[in-house]
Amino acid sequence: MEIIEIPANKLNPKEFIRQQVEAISGTVGDGVAITALSGGVDSSAVTMLGHRALGEKLKAYFINNGLMRQDEPQAVVSLFKRLGVHVEVVDAREIFFKALKGIRDPEKKREAITQTFYKKVFGAIVKQSGARYLLQGTILTDVEETVAGVKRQHNVLQQLGIDPQKAFGYGVVEPLLQIRKDGVRKVAKALGLPESAYNRMPFPGPALAARVVGAVTPENIELVRKATAILEHELKRVKAFQCMAILHEDRFAGMREGKREFGQQIEVRCWKSVDARTAKPVWLAPAVLQRIARRMTTEVPGVVSVTYNIASKPPSTMEAV
Amino acid sequence: MEIIEIPANKLNPKEFIRQQVEAISGTVGDGVAITALSGGVDSSAVTMLGHRALGEKLKAYFINNGLMRQDEPQAVVSLFKRLGVHVEVVDAREIFFKALKGIRDPEKKREAITQTFYKKVFGAIVKQSGARYLLQGTILTDVEETVAGVKRQHNVLQQLGIDPQKAFGYGVVEPLLQIRKDGVRKVAKALGLPESAYNRMPFPGPALAARVVGAVTPENIELVRKATAILEHELKRVKAFQCMAILHEDRFAGMREGKREFGQQIEVRCWKSVDARTAKPVWLAPAVLQRIARRMTTEVPGVVSVTYNIASKPPSTMEAV
Repeated sequence: MEIIEIPANKLNPKEFIRQQVEAISGTVGDGVAITALSGGVDSSAVTMLGHRALGEKLKAYFINNGLMRQDEPQAVVSLFKRLGVHVEVVDAREIFFKALKGIRDPEKKREAITQTFYKKVFGAIVKQSGARYLLQGTILTDVEETVAGVKRQHNVLQQLGIDPQKAFGYGVVEPLLQIRKDGVRKVAKALGLPESAYNRMPFPGPALAARVVGAVTPENIELVRKATAILEHELKRVKAFQCMAILHEDRFAGMREGKREFGQQIEVRCWKSVDARTAKPVWLAPAVLQRIARRMTTEVPGVVSVTYNIASKPPSTMEAV
Repeated sequence: MEIIEIPANKLNPKEFIRQQVEAISGTVGDGVAITALSGGVDSSAVTMLGHRALGEKLKAYFINNGLMRQDEPQAVVSLFKRLGVHVEVVDAREIFFKALKGIRDPEKKREAITQTFYKKVFGAIVKQSGARYLLQGTILTDVEETVAGVKRQHNVLQQLGIDPQKAFGYGVVEPLLQIRKDGVRKVAKALGLPESAYNRMPFPGPALAARVVGAVTPENIELVRKATAILEHELKRVKAFQCMAILHEDRFAGMREGKREFGQQIEVRCWKSVDARTAKPVWLAPAVLQRIARRMTTEVPGVVSVTYNIASKPPSTMEAV
């Protein structure tokens, strides 16, 4: 149960890949395995490892839970097509929004997403595909934060006392358990993923549901999706560990065309970090902040206020909820 | 009813003071008038005008509504003592907190404060003092914003169709009605107020109640009071029209000593503006923002997140609620 860390500076990516490919082959054998590709660096690396180990016996799925960023499903599918991996998109939007309806507590949101993902959506896929294993990109930081009680990572099962074989009917293989984000980036690069993938900003498992304070609805996900698209466009050339737009639930006074408008606020966070354990804000230029604020207040309906995070982790966390 | 503006650049402070002193004397005659001094530049200027016109027949009160900043009552009393004006402090904390209990809507908060202030607290003072007039520092921007429906200013009565004589039993005299904040500063300087008073940042009528999202309690006022003291200390040397700390109601993930802490957020706003009609954020140095965030997350209990406003007015307003 104890996990021995391989620090990024001691990691030999080629050797690591060789070992993990061997381990996956050994575990899965002649059977079929599946992977849920989100487009993040962790699941992208795992998909490539699984593809090397199992070839066509690895089936890759992109679960469209309705909480993804703008154009994300299409972008992921076409990237992997170029790498020779077929990705099947599963439209699970309705089932996720139904499961999240009315849930305000962040931990309960994560729990609802975990349950919906592993039990309902993946349970069905496993049955259809005949797979006995799920390959997933849990990394060491996910495990530590879950065990420490800081944040429940949706992909940490064993450490929460969940036996996936018993609970969901399939085994889970986690090739990245000994490394952190910086190590995963090295492995992903060595696996031939393009820079846009291996240097991609982290994006949380609960996706845009983690970027909305309070209950998740298709409407507020659409607002935060717009804000996220604006932010990522404006910060394309900024070096940051992670940038995000968060839709607050609090309402704020505003005015448009001389009339009062009681509207919403978007908070922008842009983090400088090496391994996600600690982080500081990136100090963006005033002109950039001003442009982000102007675009968000004009292009995202109902938004009258925009803020920028200036606190560090700890005591903040990187994600808001 | 139509108010003719005197722009600051056409204002002759000495002549303006002479006219207003004459007008106050004419209106109040041999009677007694009272003024509610908050320590802001508007009410400070009005108090000095009233003192010049009426001498001892002007009675100045500082209403401690429990929503004031740290050490504010003492500071105002001792400043005016030096200027020869006796200020009486009225402890009205309990009555205001009672009136505000459970009220979440910002307009209703303002309404509750207006009613409590003019009717309950001032009504009693007027009766005791035998005064027939209240001198107050309503400025042109207050009237415009209230009439336009942007924000109800607590001190605008006639324009809301309230006849104070009928409603509260006393007349209201408003010597600053034709000028804006920049004009008031000139007048206040010419009246002999020190720079700390005539260049003092605007502070809203509802005081710290305007700096708390959601219902006002003695507890959350205490938190935002601490945050405000930190902010004003750290920004002492920064040139800004107005700076403020706002306590949000939304909760955010945080961590302290490795454990999850679901905590609160303080938003900092620091505005550059001439006349409050439009405003832009002041772009503070990263070191300043960092220090503010560090102090707020360590010195204000339960605060795990701090943001800085980056939007402009419009579509934001300067105050949050």
